[in-house]
Amino acid sequence: MDNPSSFIAQVCRLIEPVDQAWLSAARERQLTLTKPPGSLGRLEEIANRLAAIQRTATPVVTKKRIYVVAGDHGVTTEGVSAYPREVTAQMVFNFLRGGAAINVLCRHYGIENVIVDVGVDYDFQERPGLVSKKVRRGTENFVEHPAMTEEEAIRAIQVGMDCAQGYDLIGTGEMGIGNTTSSSAILAVIAGLPVEEAVGRGTGVDDERMRHKANLIRQALHSHQPDPHDALDVLTKIGGFEIAAIAGLIIAAASRRIPVVVDGFISGAGAMIATKLAPESRQFIFFSHLSRERGHRRMMEYFSARPILDLDMCLGEGTGAAVAMSIITAAVRLYQEMATFESASVSRG
Amino acid sequence: MDNPSSFIAQVCRLIEPVDQAWLSAARERQLTLTKPPGSLGRLEEIANRLAAIQRTATPVVTKKRIYVVAGDHGVTTEGVSAYPREVTAQMVFNFLRGGAAINVLCRHYGIENVIVDVGVDYDFQERPGLVSKKVRRGTENFVEHPAMTEEEAIRAIQVGMDCAQGYDLIGTGEMGIGNTTSSSAILAVIAGLPVEEAVGRGTGVDDERMRHKANLIRQALHSHQPDPHDALDVLTKIGGFEIAAIAGLIIAAASRRIPVVVDGFISGAGAMIATKLAPESRQFIFFSHLSRERGHRRMMEYFSARPILDLDMCLGEGTGAAVAMSIITAAVRLYQEMATFESASVSRG
Repeated sequence: MDNPSSFIAQVCRLIEPVDQAWLSAARERQLTLTKPPGSLGRLEEIANRLAAIQRTATPVVTKKRIYVVAGDHGVTTEGVSAYPREVTAQMVFNFLRGGAAINVLCRHYGIENVIVDVGVDYDFQERPGLVSKKVRRGTENFVEHPAMTEEEAIRAIQVGMDCAQGYDLIGTGEMGIGNTTSSSAILAVIAGLPVEEAVGRGTGVDDERMRHKANLIRQALHSHQPDPHDALDVLTKIGGFEIAAIAGLIIAAASRRIPVVVDGFISGAGAMIATKLAPESRQFIFFSHLSRERGHRRMMEYFSARPILDLDMCLGEGTGAAVAMSIITAAVRLYQEMATFESASVSRG
Repeated sequence: MDNPSSFIAQVCRLIEPVDQAWLSAARERQLTLTKPPGSLGRLEEIANRLAAIQRTATPVVTKKRIYVVAGDHGVTTEGVSAYPREVTAQMVFNFLRGGAAINVLCRHYGIENVIVDVGVDYDFQERPGLVSKKVRRGTENFVEHPAMTEEEAIRAIQVGMDCAQGYDLIGTGEMGIGNTTSSSAILAVIAGLPVEEAVGRGTGVDDERMRHKANLIRQALHSHQPDPHDALDVLTKIGGFEIAAIAGLIIAAASRRIPVVVDGFISGAGAMIATKLAPESRQFIFFSHLSRERGHRRMMEYFSARPILDLDMCLGEGTGAAVAMSIITAAVRLYQEMATFESASVSRG
């Protein structure tokens, strides 16, 4: 294609709204199952939405995968994180050896796991489980320069788009020291929030460092003036490669009618970009958990979303998505496997 | 033994408080794992408490079982439920054939499942998966008479006590048309709540039937005057056989240092009885989910508990316990299997 951004627009146009007729059919089926109407609560809503997304009376969530997208951030030179920048690459090795939280959860819940290097400041050798799609070794420090070029933003989105296929349910995850700073900036711009409400402790900085983060973001927004209505502009000026890739993952999944389980704060920033580019993609998103990261509650308000879980987690990697994917799978199995009043000869109320 | 109630008191005395030294050791270990301190939130608290209950650095939750305890209620003759009384026995058959929600969830999460008949108004034949320990074919209508004799209450408690062994993690579940009425009465008495705050829709009654339930409870409390400080008196006058058995299950599990995952509103009424009889048993309880049944929020306030899940469920059977047991298992696996900063060569903050 000549114009890569027109390719993104083309994928966005492929997204069709979720079918209300399938949703009604699923609700009807729920009423036949041996339980008081509505008594499985949100598990019913989840299964119904799955059935509608897949346009089927027999939804399936057998093949599940979480993409842990990793990238580095130039803004780390400003001292925004409790951890040194090298930890991004070190954690990629930890993922590849199976020692990180997301590995344990994926093993526990039968979810495949793949690491996507879209911008880590380290040259990895080829390895199973690692998809090498590096756009650049980390973004620019967005306090001084735009984080990336528009061409880089588009390439990072396309990395995510290429991933989104072959699965019944996809989860987002990420790793990138400094990426709560970028996510807070995106939240502030797109939701129109005061910066101090969008900034939090990330991996655990103190009050002073949190104020420092907020000041850096204010400075960047002041000098770059990202346009809240232009998601590509926002990404280019204050984004991250992994955030761009997550946005691409969500958009392409929605275009293929694959539901996406969005992890926490950073993945949520990716979802903000995705839904700015393609508002219909919102219907394919399941927000997995309410993160303890301070801005996440406001982010969920922006989406009018009530996440599935609230476990005070704030680790990222896709850990919240993994736990929620298990609940989604349970919801679908209930819908599929429960006896009906008729088949079980149980009297109705 | 000559005096059965002294046997219960004896089991209660066996319960030892959870060891704070093991709790501290678990917290120390969490700090060595490759994640920002505290970033797994409640999953860390859960694993730490498990380690402390089991008094080990290597907690295990391999063998898991949910007991679905079933009993009928005399108060159903007053028209308190949206379903006819026969549904209790019909659902027992559904459980035994694997068609109920709890069966699906137990299959999904690798949890064993057993049905305990402690008071169903139907004579079942012997069947695998069914423990027959019927005390009587349903309680008395407690609006007119005490629900059971003290001797029956003690026998029902002992049925539960006999169950609580051989597992790393035990979940409570129940089936009994009419049992939200009994549970609401127990909540009102023990927590000292106005009856209207303790009563809810159960399996889905309308406003009028809900007021009817409340009036019946007021009438029963007025004529029997159960003593809120005497759990056996409360059980005898307004309880249910399955609620008594759940109380016994919790007490005996605690005496054997087995953590218990308590399902929703009715199981919670069992927990109120258990913790009245043996306050230390509280430390062994994990409250699984916030039920949509109206009184449950007040019940959780009574326990100062924040349940693990909030999914608008109100089905009972142990369905909330099953989902929470999976999260508890995940929490323990994270604690056990994650790499440390040292082993993974990841820099600390």
